[in-house]
Amino acid sequence: MRVVLVAARNPLNIGAAARAMSNFGFRRLRVVNPYEAGFREARSAVGASALLQSAEEYKTVAEAVADCTLVVGTTAVRHRELQHPLRRLEYGARLIRKQLGSSRVALLFGSEKFGLSNAALSHCHWLMRIPTCEENISMNLGQAVAVCLYELVRDGKAPRPAEDAKRATSVELERLTTTLLEVMRTSGYLTRRPIADVEERMRRLVRRLILPARDAVVWLGILRQAVWKLRSAKPQAG
Amino acid sequence: MRVVLVAARNPLNIGAAARAMSNFGFRRLRVVNPYEAGFREARSAVGASALLQSAEEYKTVAEAVADCTLVVGTTAVRHRELQHPLRRLEYGARLIRKQLGSSRVALLFGSEKFGLSNAALSHCHWLMRIPTCEENISMNLGQAVAVCLYELVRDGKAPRPAEDAKRATSVELERLTTTLLEVMRTSGYLTRRPIADVEERMRRLVRRLILPARDAVVWLGILRQAVWKLRSAKPQAG
Repeated sequence: MRVVLVAARNPLNIGAAARAMSNFGFRRLRVVNPYEAGFREARSAVGASALLQSAEEYKTVAEAVADCTLVVGTTAVRHRELQHPLRRLEYGARLIRKQLGSSRVALLFGSEKFGLSNAALSHCHWLMRIPTCEENISMNLGQAVAVCLYELVRDGKAPRPAEDAKRATSVELERLTTTLLEVMRTSGYLTRRPIADVEERMRRLVRRLILPARDAVVWLGILRQAVWKLRSAKPQAG
Repeated sequence: MRVVLVAARNPLNIGAAARAMSNFGFRRLRVVNPYEAGFREARSAVGASALLQSAEEYKTVAEAVADCTLVVGTTAVRHRELQHPLRRLEYGARLIRKQLGSSRVALLFGSEKFGLSNAALSHCHWLMRIPTCEENISMNLGQAVAVCLYELVRDGKAPRPAEDAKRATSVELERLTTTLLEVMRTSGYLTRRPIADVEERMRRLVRRLILPARDAVVWLGILRQAVWKLRSAKPQAG
């Protein structure tokens, strides 16, 4: 996979593109006719200065994509008479991923002001667009590169909810319920505001918490201490 | 949906975040303690200057998320002992989309240098990370905002109203946290088992509950009654 920036004007954007590449595990940056020669020193390439230093520089798009078997252009435009198939990023990225194992793919980004010229587009097999809003279709170059590369590495494996904490067991929840009821009794809550079917209600209340196991322990400790203190204070209060 | 930038240093990044919001159809930007006062004039907010002009400014994270029922923090960190559930963007965004129809969601981004502080994180229900490479996990702020918002609108699915019960707002959760701390103090819990950073820990504990709004009222009532009783008993006990 080669990321090809064509006629980029702002060195900070080239650096930002390099940073996004490094964030998502892409290594090969190619630059065609950059507006400023000093782009390799762009401070925006945080953690990606080596990648930026080793960027390959070309005079023409033709040379920059010469060794690639799939060339995909990016565009914000939807309605000007595009001569190419235009795919939404989600779908286009899927097609690119299928190719990546077996062939060299170039992903082209145009200049900040004008995007890819018709001449540059003519080197592309097809085009891809990020699903931006009609009101503001044009993205910043560095952000567009980040979003496209993210989509390419996204969802390699099915996203798992596995990082969630272990849930409290019913036994633990029942202990919590009992202690909560005890707080309500010893604090005088139930005297002031009697509740019908209070045990069932509180049992449901506690179950609705969706409580991680280790948190259940903390809650139980706090409530037990409160009960202990409330009980020990009772004789004096009563 | 509210995008909340906490302690952002570079006005260009705030402008870039505004631009990405406008690209993907988000309108409400909130800014907490920006490093530079002049951020509203950031030239990077191409096509999004109105959005940037109308950004709401806050002194604290608490105020910035007060009216939100789901608060999600973003982080690049994976291994430091995070106190929150951590979800990959693909999966986390799906959860957020489910909420968007029915509730106000805040998505927090930290400063360029340090990310979100532990204090800021303690206001979050859970955290989300962009699947970046180990070699360079930290993204540029504007690019990170773009990638997260892209994932939220990706795949053309409109946010559906959730079947879930209405969630407690951050203000309600904060009230509950304060009262819980008061229970811990007045019951002697903290004397017996001192806890470092107890306020942040309890704030996270309460956020992990996934508390329906009507239940928050019940819990608050029970804990307040306990505090009242514990306080009134105190002189005799001490």
